Amino acid sequence: MEDLEQNSVRNSQTLAGMIDHTILKPEATRAEVARLCDEAIAYGFASVCVNAVHADFVARHLKGSKVKTCVVVGFPLGASGAAAKADEASRAIAAGADEIDMVIDIGALREGDLDRFRADIAAVRRATTGKLLKVIIETCLLDDAQKETACRTAKELGADFVKTSTGFSSGGATVEDIALMRRVVGPEVGVKASGGVRTAENAWAMVEAGATRIGASAGIAIVGGAGKGGPVGY
Amino acid sequence: MEDLEQNSVRNSQTLAGMIDHTILKPEATRAEVARLCDEAIAYGFASVCVNAVHADFVARHLKGSKVKTCVVVGFPLGASGAAAKADEASRAIAAGADEIDMVIDIGALREGDLDRFRADIAAVRRATTGKLLKVIIETCLLDDAQKETACRTAKELGADFVKTSTGFSSGGATVEDIALMRRVVGPEVGVKASGGVRTAENAWAMVEAGATRIGASAGIAIVGGAGKGGPVGY
Repeated sequence: MEDLEQNSVRNSQTLAGMIDHTILKPEATRAEVARLCDEAIAYGFASVCVNAVHADFVARHLKGSKVKTCVVVGFPLGASGAAAKADEASRAIAAGADEIDMVIDIGALREGDLDRFRADIAAVRRATTGKLLKVIIETCLLDDAQKETACRTAKELGADFVKTSTGFSSGGATVEDIALMRRVVGPEVGVKASGGVRTAENAWAMVEAGATRIGASAGIAIVGGAGKGGPVGY
Repeated sequence: MEDLEQNSVRNSQTLAGMIDHTILKPEATRAEVARLCDEAIAYGFASVCVNAVHADFVARHLKGSKVKTCVVVGFPLGASGAAAKADEASRAIAAGADEIDMVIDIGALREGDLDRFRADIAAVRRATTGKLLKVIIETCLLDDAQKETACRTAKELGADFVKTSTGFSSGGATVEDIALMRRVVGPEVGVKASGGVRTAENAWAMVEAGATRIGASAGIAIVGGAGKGGPVGY
């Protein structure tokens, strides 16, 4: 009975709608990005997540579909400074981005310079008014107290999501971190699990721990392996 | 005799003057960056190389010394777009940067979109007039023909240096790549070896292959191991 219930909840359509279909490697070509867009439309993913150089291309490619254009900012080091991040976000939005995934100022948080840490997020929040803002806290470089501070601050400053990882550091999303982040931000703010999520099983574990979005380059494998139903129209 | 000559050329002061003393990890604290500045002054390194968030701090810390402030732009993915990179460079210069190390648009080069590839470098060159511009080509992601195109284009567009690597991808500087880059750019443009250079022996191999600058976080080990004389005043 438990199993049956779980199976009925765990349907691939639900999961697909939570996936940010992601290509962030620096050598990505337009052909690869175009394919990702087509796949996102076919599978009903939440967004296509790319570097800013592809923002305009992706926004045009996705036009008329329900799939959002998601662009990373200050990525992946989070060390370009508040003003540069805000400018980058503004440019991405002007190019058609619906969602901005920014990386926090990790050094400021770790050294306890919370003024600098807050100013950085606040600047990007101002630049993204009306758009969805996800704040990447890069959990693998933080201790639990720092993770809590990051999530609490992001929520206070109006972030729509907190997000675990860039996928370019020493670790990705864990169930423990998702649970911690969900506990800190409560039910109103989204939690995105990203970095190393490659299977349906792992994705569902994240969702059950509190994730409401999954960032992955393996979205098709995740959905394909999620149980009932294949992709529609692909 | 050969050995003696080589020893007399291989003195640590010469090498120190070629080193960009580097800290680019996202979790770097101001205390770590300050220590790097003090070390660079004491050892006579060419510059301190940091992320943009530290540009102002480093420029102030190095004021009155001969050590330059070097700031990375579009780092490490090179995928933030030409306009964002140019803005980032302008901001870094306004904050006190003497040298800008930009990452090329790797995807544009790999897919053969040379218009986009050139426009990216040209935009940053315009934004850095009067300052030193190094163009990071990320050799580990390119084949030899792409490396040649990158170096030739950077030289044509007025770059002061070509540079091998960010240190954040799958590989760093090799003697073969330095030799290739030197051959393509000729004697007028600098060549910077970066990524994985950790010993005097390796640094000298790069210099003998044509490098005129070494980017390293292990500058002190490199200089300390280079033979005669320790650091001055440290």
